[in-house]
Amino acid sequence: MSEDLEKICQVIKESSSFLLTTHINPEGDAIGSELALALSLEQMGKDVFVLNQDPVPYFLRFLPGVERVQNQGPARLFDVGILLDCGSPERTGSAGEHLSFCDRVMSIDHHVIQSRFGDFSYIDTHASSTGELVFRLIKRLGVNIDSHIATLLWVAIATDTGSFRYSNTTSSALKVAAELVERGANPMAVSEQLYEHHPPKRLELLSRVLSTLEILEDGRIASITILKEDMEIVGASNDFLEGFINYPRSLEGVVVAASFREEHDSLYKVSLRAKGNADVARVATFFNGGGHVKAAGFKLSGNLAKVKRDVYTKIYEMLDECCGNE
Amino acid sequence: MSEDLEKICQVIKESSSFLLTTHINPEGDAIGSELALALSLEQMGKDVFVLNQDPVPYFLRFLPGVERVQNQGPARLFDVGILLDCGSPERTGSAGEHLSFCDRVMSIDHHVIQSRFGDFSYIDTHASSTGELVFRLIKRLGVNIDSHIATLLWVAIATDTGSFRYSNTTSSALKVAAELVERGANPMAVSEQLYEHHPPKRLELLSRVLSTLEILEDGRIASITILKEDMEIVGASNDFLEGFINYPRSLEGVVVAASFREEHDSLYKVSLRAKGNADVARVATFFNGGGHVKAAGFKLSGNLAKVKRDVYTKIYEMLDECCGNE
Repeated sequence: MSEDLEKICQVIKESSSFLLTTHINPEGDAIGSELALALSLEQMGKDVFVLNQDPVPYFLRFLPGVERVQNQGPARLFDVGILLDCGSPERTGSAGEHLSFCDRVMSIDHHVIQSRFGDFSYIDTHASSTGELVFRLIKRLGVNIDSHIATLLWVAIATDTGSFRYSNTTSSALKVAAELVERGANPMAVSEQLYEHHPPKRLELLSRVLSTLEILEDGRIASITILKEDMEIVGASNDFLEGFINYPRSLEGVVVAASFREEHDSLYKVSLRAKGNADVARVATFFNGGGHVKAAGFKLSGNLAKVKRDVYTKIYEMLDECCGNE
Repeated sequence: MSEDLEKICQVIKESSSFLLTTHINPEGDAIGSELALALSLEQMGKDVFVLNQDPVPYFLRFLPGVERVQNQGPARLFDVGILLDCGSPERTGSAGEHLSFCDRVMSIDHHVIQSRFGDFSYIDTHASSTGELVFRLIKRLGVNIDSHIATLLWVAIATDTGSFRYSNTTSSALKVAAELVERGANPMAVSEQLYEHHPPKRLELLSRVLSTLEILEDGRIASITILKEDMEIVGASNDFLEGFINYPRSLEGVVVAASFREEHDSLYKVSLRAKGNADVARVATFFNGGGHVKAAGFKLSGNLAKVKRDVYTKIYEMLDECCGNE
């Protein structure tokens, strides 16, 4: 791994033009890592182009250097293409097409991947975030970590660890975070931007949605229902719903949280979250959906009562298999 | 300060019985610091009694050693009484009365205090939390920081910094946090306990309280109102309200968030939170309350409309002074 890092440093030093990209629907770790690396390479006198298929989400638009992110690629060649926080070129969406105009391609990521791709890669699945890997890389490159770069990497690490709450909150992540604060990252200013810029309508919608809370008899399943009517009354868009499923999930004793969002008459988007040993991917697969063990989803037609009954039945079957009588 | 620490270590070493206490309505830093110090003193072979006026709130009842917290004092003498995270003996409520049965009294705190009290004190207003001070103290005492003590101090620091989001998220706090993880604190397990064990009634109450959201015309002040009636219908206790004020605070453009909690007929407990340059301590002082620049509170009598009008007026006066036309 440290050899991988050494090799990547060498290639970076001997190259002069770089295309950076990341996955579709980019979040804090993707954008933070990408921009931190971009500013670092520019500090080294390199020519850098940052290309993402999707725009930067609204809560990250305060980031230093965010104006560098382009959504249309240039018709030109680059010495090196770098994929950040992204398991495969396909997950970059249309941006990945431009990698074929790069002499060499490298990947920097902390996710478990199916197979390595590109000419070089620096993958560490024990790292908290891609931001932590970029930190190690630019330190090795001798970059001066100024307050802009520190802020970007802080956002990468803080968001990917869920504000230092998830299992990737390692001692090493916290030490890097400490150094970033020393170098000018301001946790409070960043948090205000990330978590305190919600539109008021979001709380109005939350109040309505929480009044639909349903907890099944044995307390292991809790759900919320998002009705089209509530969305319309409030004038809410779908991105207001970000994080709502964490409310039923936050309840004591709940093992599976569900949200039923009415898309059209009799069509519901169902999202599931699991705690403990529960595996909601199994339930989603049964209904032709997808996802992970802890977070999965699918669509289902029918009247709401029937949709809920069918979903709850399948969840209980899964719980019997995964969790027994625990 | 380091002399204060030295002196406190010396007194602890030469004493054998200890009464520990903290403020009324104790939160994570109060209970975490208190129990971490209790376990440390026991490890040193000391006799320790932990006495708080109020019970441990439900979301902290998973803490190691929590069964040590007593709500009734023993009719006996102690060598040393230690006040943690508490500006004055009055703020301990009834527990403070037992300090008069202690030969010597010391205070460990990170808050700005009016005047020192007790025979010895270790006050550092630059520390993130009282937990960070206890960490320094027990290191100096040569205590072995095991996974229980590490968990308690992690909870103290993580909760008092708002999951590493507030302005007290210093580099030093993060370095201590890193060491606590190395010594066995498990951020994810703690977070599940702290943030995913809410009683369902809390969400019911949250839904009702969010429907009272009031945003003033210029969008700089937002408030919620907690009515006695809503508390009674839901069957909620006061600890259910923890964090509710973060909802109005989370709104874009809001500079001061307020909550009005009806205690009795015509008596309201007002809590304020500030963002940016706003200073809610000034407002609280005017109404004979207390707190910090960013978080303060007081009580006010009158009918709700008048109470709100008076409070909003004072907030606007403060905003004119602190924030100008920004």
